[in-house]
Amino acid sequence: MITQITCSSGEELIANVTMEFTKAKLRISSIREYIEESENRHFIRIESDMIISLGKFLSSLHKVLPQDAIVSSNFLSKKKIVVFVTKEHHCLADILIRNHTNTLGAEVQAVIGNHETLRDITERFGIPFHFISHEGKPKEEFESEIERCLLDFSYEYIVLAKFMRILSPEFISRRVNKIINIHHSFLPAFVGASPYKQAFQRGVKLIGASSHFVTSDLDEGPIITQQTIAINHANKINDIVSAGAEVEKSVLARALKLVFEDRVFVHHNRTIIFE
Amino acid sequence: MITQITCSSGEELIANVTMEFTKAKLRISSIREYIEESENRHFIRIESDMIISLGKFLSSLHKVLPQDAIVSSNFLSKKKIVVFVTKEHHCLADILIRNHTNTLGAEVQAVIGNHETLRDITERFGIPFHFISHEGKPKEEFESEIERCLLDFSYEYIVLAKFMRILSPEFISRRVNKIINIHHSFLPAFVGASPYKQAFQRGVKLIGASSHFVTSDLDEGPIITQQTIAINHANKINDIVSAGAEVEKSVLARALKLVFEDRVFVHHNRTIIFE
Amino acid sequence: MITQITCSSGEELIANVTMEFTKAKLRISSIREYIEESENRHFIRIESDMIISLGKFLSSLHKVLPQDAIVSSNFLSKKKIVVFVTKEHHCLADILIRNHTNTLGAEVQAVIGNHETLRDITERFGIPFHFISHEGKPKEEFESEIERCLLDFSYEYIVLAKFMRILSPEFISRRVNKIINIHHSFLPAFVGASPYKQAFQRGVKLIGASSHFVTSDLDEGPIITQQTIAINHANKINDIVSAGAEVEKSVLARALKLVFEDRVFVHHNRTIIFE
Amino acid sequence: MITQITCSSGEELIANVTMEFTKAKLRISSIREYIEESENRHFIRIESDMIISLGKFLSSLHKVLPQDAIVSSNFLSKKKIVVFVTKEHHCLADILIRNHTNTLGAEVQAVIGNHETLRDITERFGIPFHFISHEGKPKEEFESEIERCLLDFSYEYIVLAKFMRILSPEFISRRVNKIINIHHSFLPAFVGASPYKQAFQRGVKLIGASSHFVTSDLDEGPIITQQTIAINHANKINDIVSAGAEVEKSVLARALKLVFEDRVFVHHNRTIIFE
Repeated sequence: MITQITCSSGEELIANVTMEFTKAKLRISSIREYIEESENRHFIRIESDMIISLGKFLSSLHKVLPQDAIVSSNFLSKKKIVVFVTKEHHCLADILIRNHTNTLGAEVQAVIGNHETLRDITERFGIPFHFISHEGKPKEEFESEIERCLLDFSYEYIVLAKFMRILSPEFISRRVNKIINIHHSFLPAFVGASPYKQAFQRGVKLIGASSHFVTSDLDEGPIITQQTIAINHANKINDIVSAGAEVEKSVLARALKLVFEDRVFVHHNRTIIFE
Repeated sequence: MITQITCSSGEELIANVTMEFTKAKLRISSIREYIEESENRHFIRIESDMIISLGKFLSSLHKVLPQDAIVSSNFLSKKKIVVFVTKEHHCLADILIRNHTNTLGAEVQAVIGNHETLRDITERFGIPFHFISHEGKPKEEFESEIERCLLDFSYEYIVLAKFMRILSPEFISRRVNKIINIHHSFLPAFVGASPYKQAFQRGVKLIGASSHFVTSDLDEGPIITQQTIAINHANKINDIVSAGAEVEKSVLARALKLVFEDRVFVHHNRTIIFE
Repeated sequence: MITQITCSSGEELIANVTMEFTKAKLRISSIREYIEESENRHFIRIESDMIISLGKFLSSLHKVLPQDAIVSSNFLSKKKIVVFVTKEHHCLADILIRNHTNTLGAEVQAVIGNHETLRDITERFGIPFHFISHEGKPKEEFESEIERCLLDFSYEYIVLAKFMRILSPEFISRRVNKIINIHHSFLPAFVGASPYKQAFQRGVKLIGASSHFVTSDLDEGPIITQQTIAINHANKINDIVSAGAEVEKSVLARALKLVFEDRVFVHHNRTIIFE
Repeated sequence: MITQITCSSGEELIANVTMEFTKAKLRISSIREYIEESENRHFIRIESDMIISLGKFLSSLHKVLPQDAIVSSNFLSKKKIVVFVTKEHHCLADILIRNHTNTLGAEVQAVIGNHETLRDITERFGIPFHFISHEGKPKEEFESEIERCLLDFSYEYIVLAKFMRILSPEFISRRVNKIINIHHSFLPAFVGASPYKQAFQRGVKLIGASSHFVTSDLDEGPIITQQTIAINHANKINDIVSAGAEVEKSVLARALKLVFEDRVFVHHNRTIIFE
């Protein structure tokens, strides 16, 4: 079981927390605590045995914690996710393969695409694909259709696997730190569209990708992980795009693993990650 | 202050430990605990404020710990080290520069060489160099001379920065987990001499280096860190040796940083590292 | 068009070769030549326009080359391959996805498995799967069945994507430098079975994988590419196996790209690679 | 001997060029040619035996090349360089050590600093240090003093090893592609001052450094090489600065090696690098 606690400083905080585990006869196998000193904010992650009566345990735990504490205890069951896509297959295919072979750490409930392009690959793995076009309609209508579609599924996270539409602040605000995006550049370089073309023109020797939680501020959400890959003078734009696809799917896979293993805390615009 | 604790499982272990910090009014900024489950062995690292009366604190701490507990609390003062060398300069020069610019996390007390080759570079930085030849004498005599020389210095660690003599089990056993070596290969590939020649002949595409604590079993001590670097078909043996020198100095610097920041625990033949 | 030439030293070799391209009105866009000096062996790779009458061009080219010259000119069409597997899906799934999305640089003609395990994933992509059991029969019989099955396909390379049987020297000798394997370790460390278990026990901090051409000498063929990935003390054997799977599929994909783009020459037990 | 040729397309270009090597009885050991197709611009690098009468060879070579050809043949002798610094020691110390141990591929003629800070480390290696303050004087006067100082030295390249003044377009235009800078960020992210502070505030997970030729357009010159290093939530700004120092010295060393081995061509704002 993974328990995540975020709270302000309390009297004998970690002592009291671990005592609750002892009382509940939960053997701890790993503890990590990080304190953001400027704000005296505590981030605690505890791996332990699982408990049967979770509700009772959490209520005991809350009694020894400051009032502002946010606590979650997750059994090591898989997260449920919905994936949003447009036309590019590389991130989705990687997720589908991992899902199919039980190595994703999550279960894909459905794929929603604003194009039909990726229906074929999705359905080959027996996952439902929902086509919701954005064309010829206002964004609110597009998003309402998505919301209605989502009602049919139980899910915790939405993964934007190369979903090329910008979601409204309203849509996002209902899912704070629950939407994960892969951005096709080494943020903050080349924010916005066509980063690979920009990279080619600038003659850079590395390109990168960043996975981040989505906030209403485009490409400015808390970064989960980033990675770079070398390119050279002989690479044309389509070579750079291919190299970018490799690094994008690798970065997104890494970010999802960290999130699905409950290793990520968000604090303001930064992530605290206990790898 | 960094406190490291290794012990078997105890009643309310982490609760009791952190309570002692609270009692001593020491604010904790980071806790890491890892439990080796097969042996129920606990490894705890706590970063906290510094305490004035350390002895009293440690004695209180021991009272709440199992009898087998090994505890050390280190102020963030620099470790003292002695460096052993032979003829190759790259690791020593890197250490001397970091020492000179206060970025080593340790203070070099002296350099001992079994050749005169590196006296010049050492003395340019105002560090004493002691030449102790191994030639024409039995190993016991060579090591006795080293032991006598070491008596003049206060030091915690010995760093073998390309020291090409094999130390006796007796010498090593007096300094368990206190001698750090850089091995010129990606262990366990190419154990022994001339790893770069072996690498060239095998046509490998990566070479590596490993830093480890020295045990009486040659090249078999607990590994602290390892790194690899790409080579290609056009690289002759001397190119591989140069690439090896780059990765060796980088790996040794990384290992020393981890050790000097009290991030490394040794358990049997493995290291537990809280990065 | 990619032209690869391997030959001993000749009079005005590169001048004569490029003159033939000029005569044939083939614009060259990239030339690489490497000379293995100890044996005066030349390796030349030329990227140029495509030619219609290839036979005539090659015959002219041979006239200006030493008698021992080996020449191949490949249009940038896709190689045809057959993939051999056992039970592990990660390398095969990666190949199938790349094949399906036209990013493999080759076309998978068939998958042959000595277990039925991977039939499902293969057939989801419309690729024929042939089950040929190795059980209860001598190796010669097993390999005869494979040979008979292969007769139905036109292919240039066989890819061993975690195929856990050892092929006979006879089978291999009919396909020199045409069988590509992924080895689950950073050769030459941990040769043989269970490398991840060995890696765990030794407490290494990096594990790796190597892709190589298969020769009759087990795990000793010319290495194409190698890569490593960091692991740490908290990784259990199954975590190491997962990390290994990631690096294996990445290394194999890289090696296949190099081979399929005609960037690899083999000379004795080493590869010359023009990246 | 390394011969570098840049020119527009010519009749039987590479054939004619290599014929000249044959006539001069120069054995070639490596050829690389790259053609920038959009402009039909050829970049050729040839490694060969050395020639005694270089002038005569170059004049023959020019006869078979287009009029716009730029040719240089460099014996493998060391380049001569002058290093400009301000206060930070890490890049300079790395250069001084490599210079002292004959592994730089160049010879440091002098160090010019606009502060006295790095005189000590420079003089420890017997290299002349010239202090030229920028304070209380217009930039033209500061640069005139530098120009006067440079008159005393024979040098080919100027290396800005953390030189924190912006040079005038006039100063730079006299040394096109001859001034190499290390920029403390992964360009084009965080252009300008305080990139590490920006990186900390944005919560990035990687930081980088870029080495580039200096043009009059600040931080916009042709990039030679770039590298990144991972950071995490626990890293304070000074930890990021330390990590940055490591990657800066590593990137600069790599860029210098490429330039000093005549592997770098500049074309508009991009580099072509034959590694």
